[in-house]
Amino acid sequence: MKKYIAENKERFFEELFSILRIPSISAKSEHKPDMKKCANRIVELLMEAGADEAGVYPTAGNPVVYGEKIIDPKAKTVLIYGHYDVQPPEPLEKWKTDPFEPVIHHNAIWCRGANDDKGQLFMHIKAFEFLVKTGQLKHNVKFLFEGEEEIGSGSLPAWVKENKKLLKADVILVSDTTMISEKVPSINCGMRGLAYLEVEVTGPNKDLHSGHYGGAVANPINVLCDMISSLIDEKGRVTVKGFYDDVVELSKKDRAQLARAPFDLDEYKKGLDIKEVKGEVGYTTLERTGIRPCLDVCGIWGGYTGQGAKTVIPSTAHAKISMRLVPNQKSKKITKLFKEHFLSIAPKYVKVKVTPCEGGNGFLIPITSHAFQAASRAMKEVYGIEPVPSRGGGSIAVLAEMQTILGIDPLLMGFGLERDTIHSPNESYLLKQFFAGMESIALFYKYY
Amino acid sequence: MKKYIAENKERFFEELFSILRIPSISAKSEHKPDMKKCANRIVELLMEAGADEAGVYPTAGNPVVYGEKIIDPKAKTVLIYGHYDVQPPEPLEKWKTDPFEPVIHHNAIWCRGANDDKGQLFMHIKAFEFLVKTGQLKHNVKFLFEGEEEIGSGSLPAWVKENKKLLKADVILVSDTTMISEKVPSINCGMRGLAYLEVEVTGPNKDLHSGHYGGAVANPINVLCDMISSLIDEKGRVTVKGFYDDVVELSKKDRAQLARAPFDLDEYKKGLDIKEVKGEVGYTTLERTGIRPCLDVCGIWGGYTGQGAKTVIPSTAHAKISMRLVPNQKSKKITKLFKEHFLSIAPKYVKVKVTPCEGGNGFLIPITSHAFQAASRAMKEVYGIEPVPSRGGGSIAVLAEMQTILGIDPLLMGFGLERDTIHSPNESYLLKQFFAGMESIALFYKYY
Repeated sequence: MKKYIAENKERFFEELFSILRIPSISAKSEHKPDMKKCANRIVELLMEAGADEAGVYPTAGNPVVYGEKIIDPKAKTVLIYGHYDVQPPEPLEKWKTDPFEPVIHHNAIWCRGANDDKGQLFMHIKAFEFLVKTGQLKHNVKFLFEGEEEIGSGSLPAWVKENKKLLKADVILVSDTTMISEKVPSINCGMRGLAYLEVEVTGPNKDLHSGHYGGAVANPINVLCDMISSLIDEKGRVTVKGFYDDVVELSKKDRAQLARAPFDLDEYKKGLDIKEVKGEVGYTTLERTGIRPCLDVCGIWGGYTGQGAKTVIPSTAHAKISMRLVPNQKSKKITKLFKEHFLSIAPKYVKVKVTPCEGGNGFLIPITSHAFQAASRAMKEVYGIEPVPSRGGGSIAVLAEMQTILGIDPLLMGFGLERDTIHSPNESYLLKQFFAGMESIALFYKYY
Repeated sequence: MKKYIAENKERFFEELFSILRIPSISAKSEHKPDMKKCANRIVELLMEAGADEAGVYPTAGNPVVYGEKIIDPKAKTVLIYGHYDVQPPEPLEKWKTDPFEPVIHHNAIWCRGANDDKGQLFMHIKAFEFLVKTGQLKHNVKFLFEGEEEIGSGSLPAWVKENKKLLKADVILVSDTTMISEKVPSINCGMRGLAYLEVEVTGPNKDLHSGHYGGAVANPINVLCDMISSLIDEKGRVTVKGFYDDVVELSKKDRAQLARAPFDLDEYKKGLDIKEVKGEVGYTTLERTGIRPCLDVCGIWGGYTGQGAKTVIPSTAHAKISMRLVPNQKSKKITKLFKEHFLSIAPKYVKVKVTPCEGGNGFLIPITSHAFQAASRAMKEVYGIEPVPSRGGGSIAVLAEMQTILGIDPLLMGFGLERDTIHSPNESYLLKQFFAGMESIALFYKYY
């Protein structure tokens, strides 16, 4: 595949850029037309790459792209999953380039979606194209790309249920995760789940002058801070009642296995420019993101946030709260527990509203499977090192559901790196990883 | 004056509206031209009302309006203070009418600045005009209107120092406060001071994916909430070290005197739609806003605050924090104590920055003075009830400084009501109060 890449590189960039330029931000309703535009363009790319057929399928939310090439009904079938929606680019002022105008610079592609997940799903289209054009394809291949991954994949499960037969396959192959580092290839064998909620604290029925009322009326921002502060205890544990009930505690042996992954805490701190890490007492940094659940405020707002000094007690304050879950925690149960807990700690002098936003369960992947072994062999050939099984801290909520509905295990061959700063300003994707990913995927087909 | 008001009402509205329409928002630098425009228009109004001279004077910040009419160098001189700048109108979506297009509706004027302080300073211009036009003026009158009261009056003290002779007077008369209620006229005999700061908490050097890092890296929003939460203890007391050191504790007798002011807690709670009030243990609601200091978060922001769910650990989180001070607390000292305290409680895993924004000391006014007695008599004649001496919770920072520089006591004849929601959306000013204010001011001259 190396040679094919060298010969077609410029065309690959042009094609990828044509989808990167479309601001398919699923979190914002004004981008609805962009979702469709992006889906249509991917259908064109699939057809050009050699799919028998491909199309845009409506759902209750953003459309799904489905395409396939069936070689032989008896051959093994690989179902590729990816998503063409992206995170909002904010804060815009921190981008060094236009978030939706891709550029190649310092051996990387810079653009929102360059890695997550347009860049990674594109590798699959090109590996497939290579196999088709060179007559090496010996599997049936099905492509399923959704437009709501970044907002919780609300519509996909229903579509998957309705199209169970169409999606019949032997493995769900996904590139939407990161490797431990450029020099330490890894394959994810588990992902965390997610429960994401928005909370609103209301005090007085209108904004008040902080001089006339300050000291006598509960300030909803102060109350929200008190409530948030109480959600994590001194040991770094989430205080939501029942939060840890279903968490699977790993055996010493399993923890030792995970600890094999190389990790340099000093490098980690240096990279983030922090003096200390912080997390649940008794666990390492990799364990804290891999096998332990957590709670983070992803956004907070209330009162006057403009220039200068406005002296006001606002009527309301808001926060967006995310909890990352581990296998066996169920997103729906945790969402319910959080809501109950948060309402129960609300003091009398405010009103509190809790609105669930999105969620999904975590999952584990058996590393002994044929697919996992084929992926491992492929990556070893490309990187020269056997990949380490790792646990991803992020969530692809819908994969746990697809695993249940279709009865097929996912396989996570991700080629992102931490340096890519997905979900943040200046997202990028290293060209080396982009090309090594295509090669690894092509070899996966060879060994699977 | 009643008759004069009846005959000139429509012109009064037109004149007041001409300054209300100018968005003289001192907190926002883009409104610089509006400050000058508003100052110029007030000069016109002063000249038309009968001033000998009036002009716009530059300062390091927004210009000052000064005008005067000298009847007799030996006569008593009244120095009127007011401010033509207004609070930002945000949140805009909560306004029922355009914040800068005044309307008369339900017997009130609705507009940003209708009360605070354009409406109130305008009463002084019209009371003065009445006395001039009817040949009743027997005092020298000086007008001093600034354009930075809402942002801490940064430039006025220097201007006052430079123009000490020009500003020589016997009393500083101010209408920039509220009365207890429509039926309970009151005169403020003290105001709280202010210390206002902005804080910034920085965690990692960039926004992070909350899945990849959540649980392992300190989230600056969570840390900010912890820090804010620790600023007020369970008894409702501010925990900043040394915060209460200079607070004057009132005697039982003084507290009993203040407790004479009629106050209905149930009405108060009903008006704000809250089930419980909250404040420092051991003090009543009126005491909490009148004689006790407090701390409020006036604004907070960090992370993703848009539509939908973005899973991010932001790099920074911010808050604006206001402390209302009572006599003898010094704003500069409290600002310093707060900064030291806030930096001292910052955990190792974040960086914290504290920026002072504005401040001023509180002050007390002797209720035995001739000016206070004249005001009391005037208001009794208009309202039919003797006004109650009260303590204002708000701050007019610059008055304490002017009191010191000029050696003149201020007198606070305020005609606002709590219902006017100054600093909030839908600011209004009751016509009844607007006219009763003019009458009271005209009578003040009579009895002073």
